[in-house]
Formats: sequence, structure tokens, C-alpha cells
Amino acid sequence: MTARGRFLSFEGIDGSGKSTQAQRLAQNLRAAGHDVVLTREPGGSPGAEEIRALVLQGDPARWSAETELLLFTAARRDHLERTIRPALAAGRVVICDRFADSTRMYQGRGGLRDTVDALHRLMIGIEPDLTLLIDMDPEAALGRAKARATAEERFEDFGLPLQQQMREGFLALAQECPDRIAVIDGNRPAGEVAAEVLARVEPRLP
Amino acid sequence: MTARGRFLSFEGIDGSGKSTQAQRLAQNLRAAGHDVVLTREPGGSPGAEEIRALVLQGDPARWSAETELLLFTAARRDHLERTIRPALAAGRVVICDRFADSTRMYQGRGGLRDTVDALHRLMIGIEPDLTLLIDMDPEAALGRAKARATAEERFEDFGLPLQQQMREGFLALAQECPDRIAVIDGNRPAGEVAAEVLARVEPRLP
Repeated sequence: MTARGRFLSFEGIDGSGKSTQAQRLAQNLRAAGHDVVLTREPGGSPGAEEIRALVLQGDPARWSAETELLLFTAARRDHLERTIRPALAAGRVVICDRFADSTRMYQGRGGLRDTVDALHRLMIGIEPDLTLLIDMDPEAALGRAKARATAEERFEDFGLPLQQQMREGFLALAQECPDRIAVIDGNRPAGEVAAEVLARVEPRLP
Repeated sequence: MTARGRFLSFEGIDGSGKSTQAQRLAQNLRAAGHDVVLTREPGGSPGAEEIRALVLQGDPARWSAETELLLFTAARRDHLERTIRPALAAGRVVICDRFADSTRMYQGRGGLRDTVDALHRLMIGIEPDLTLLIDMDPEAALGRAKARATAEERFEDFGLPLQQQMREGFLALAQECPDRIAVIDGNRPAGEVAAEVLARVEPRLP
């Protein structure tokens, strides 16, 4: 439990529908009378959005994996201090589109996972009360991600093998943290997925 | 010893003359035939200079101490990878105006010193072969720093008590690391200081 509010995160590969589901959950909870903050990473506070732009714009190869990890952690720390913790302290429900699990997957690949975990313990500490992992067929997700890709969305550039590797990584993480991470089958119409998400979330609310 | 080259850093309070001394040492070593890279922190590589601008421009209160620490560490990591390590690997002498000791002093105050040290071990690791600490009367240094202050130099804003605290902190650090940190009396004409710096450095060169 985090302060008085509740901290929920959505995770999944690009194109899995997690941003759509985060928005739908926010709508559904607001309709039920909850005070909701919908936010995202990287970003979610003015300073963190500036760091996001620094990392994601320009040549993707200009930062090493370690420097990128430090920049994302700086953004997360700012987001946590300026947006997440104040909202939780005020009893609000925080819904975050991506949080530390995305860093574990994307920045943690290639042998950096232990460093990612150590840095998280040192500088961030907090985990969501509940993480909704939207699990989706990597090929279908990739098609969806490509269709709406912007200049910033460079992760998709790595193609299907990365999508498959990330999907397997997220599922393994869910097995490591069964109390925190709920796996939701995203290979269904968005309305059905949203209904299951809401059913999983409601028992955890104050 | 760091790879084939030598890694030297200058430290001291603002206005202590360390930047002048770093330049003079670079000139003196070049005159003696050494291949020298003169660099500075925060900054020292294109990416690190961008991070420097993000941290130092705008409202000083917009980043917490922890976020600032992460941003400076990201800048240092980039500087290390892109500038310092390649130069050392090529057998060059690297002279750096400020390095991790400045972070230990400035970002480590207010109870964050253990976090600074843990983050350094996790993400940076390297220490200079020799650090020249230019020790200077805080009042005289402050006068000098104020006279040439730019919009970026906000550390001086904290005034004499901070300068005194930082001077004492640097001297305590030098006592902790007597083999690495040489304390140089900076309360003398620059030429005298430069001569002592050169005498301390020469025996350590390849």
C-alpha cells in the first residue's frame, strides 16, 4: 500500500493497447466517483518531460544503455516527487502508463538487469500496488505500433525479435511478482479487456 | 593507474583558481611533450553538455537534490565513455576540471553522501590517479567567484557559509584519500601554484 491512495501501472510491449486501457480505466474509475491521476513514463512531470525529450529525440545511438538508464531514472525520480507521491498522499488513484518494469525490460536487457534493480532500490524504491500487464501477440502488437509510430517511438525499430523477447520478459517478471502483476489477455476487443482490468482493480481500491 | 594514460582532476571551491590551474597544467604538460586532453564537469562531451544545460539553466529549485544527482551522474557516465576512457586508452593525459569529488561535496551535503557514494560505485567506478585540491581562503574565493559569475554559476548564490562548509569538506576528503588527493595552497600567485602543481604531477606521469 502506498500512502492513502493507490498506485496502478500498465505495462506491456509497444502496441499492446496499454495506453488505451490506462485511459479507459481512468474513465471507468472517474465514472465510479474516484479521484484519478492519469500519467505516463518516461515523463509525467514538467522536468521529466524535458528529460524524456533529451533521451528520445535525436540519434538513438547517442546515449549508451547506462546513460539512458540514468536519465530515465532521473525522470522517474522527478515524476515520483512532483506527481505520483503528492497524488497518493492526497488519497488519489494514480494510473501510470509504464513504470519501472519497462526499465527492467528495455534498459535491463543485454546484461544490465542487476544494475537496473540496484539503481531502482537506491533512487526510487516504490513499486505500484498493482501492475496490469497487457499481454498481446507480438506480431499483432508490432503491426499496431508501426501504424501509429511517431518520431519518438524508436523502440519498435528493433522489430519482431525484440517484441517477442520483451513479451517473454514481461511474462517472466509477472511470474516473479504474482502478487503485484496481473496478466491480462490483450488479444480481445478493447471493451472486454477494459472490463477485466476494472474487475481486477476494483477490489484493490480504498 | 587508469589504462595507459593518466587521469588527473582539479577540485576546490568556486573561485579557488582550479580552472586556471587546470589550463596552466595543460599548457605546461603540452610544452613538455605530453598529449593532453583538458576537459571539465559537468559536461565534457556533447551529451553531457546538454545535460549540464538542463540542470543549470532555469529555476535552481526545479530539480530535487536526488534528481540533480542522477542527472549529473548521467552526464559523468557520458563524459567517461565518450571523452575520458578513449583518451586514457590512447595513452593521453586527461585533466578534468571537477570530477566526482565535487558531487560528493555539493550533491552529497544534506545527508545524501552515502547515496552519492553508492551511485558512484554502481554507475561510474573510476577515480582519478591524482586529484589536485586547490585550497583557498573561502572569503577571497567568493569574491573572485562573484566577480566573474555567469547565469549558470548558481552555487555561489549560497554565500560564504556554504563556501566554508565546502572547503572543510574537501579538506576532510583529502584526509580520507591521502594517496589520491594532493592539497595545494591556492593563496599564492598563480605562477607559484602552477609550479607546485607541476612538481606534484610530473612524478606520476608515464
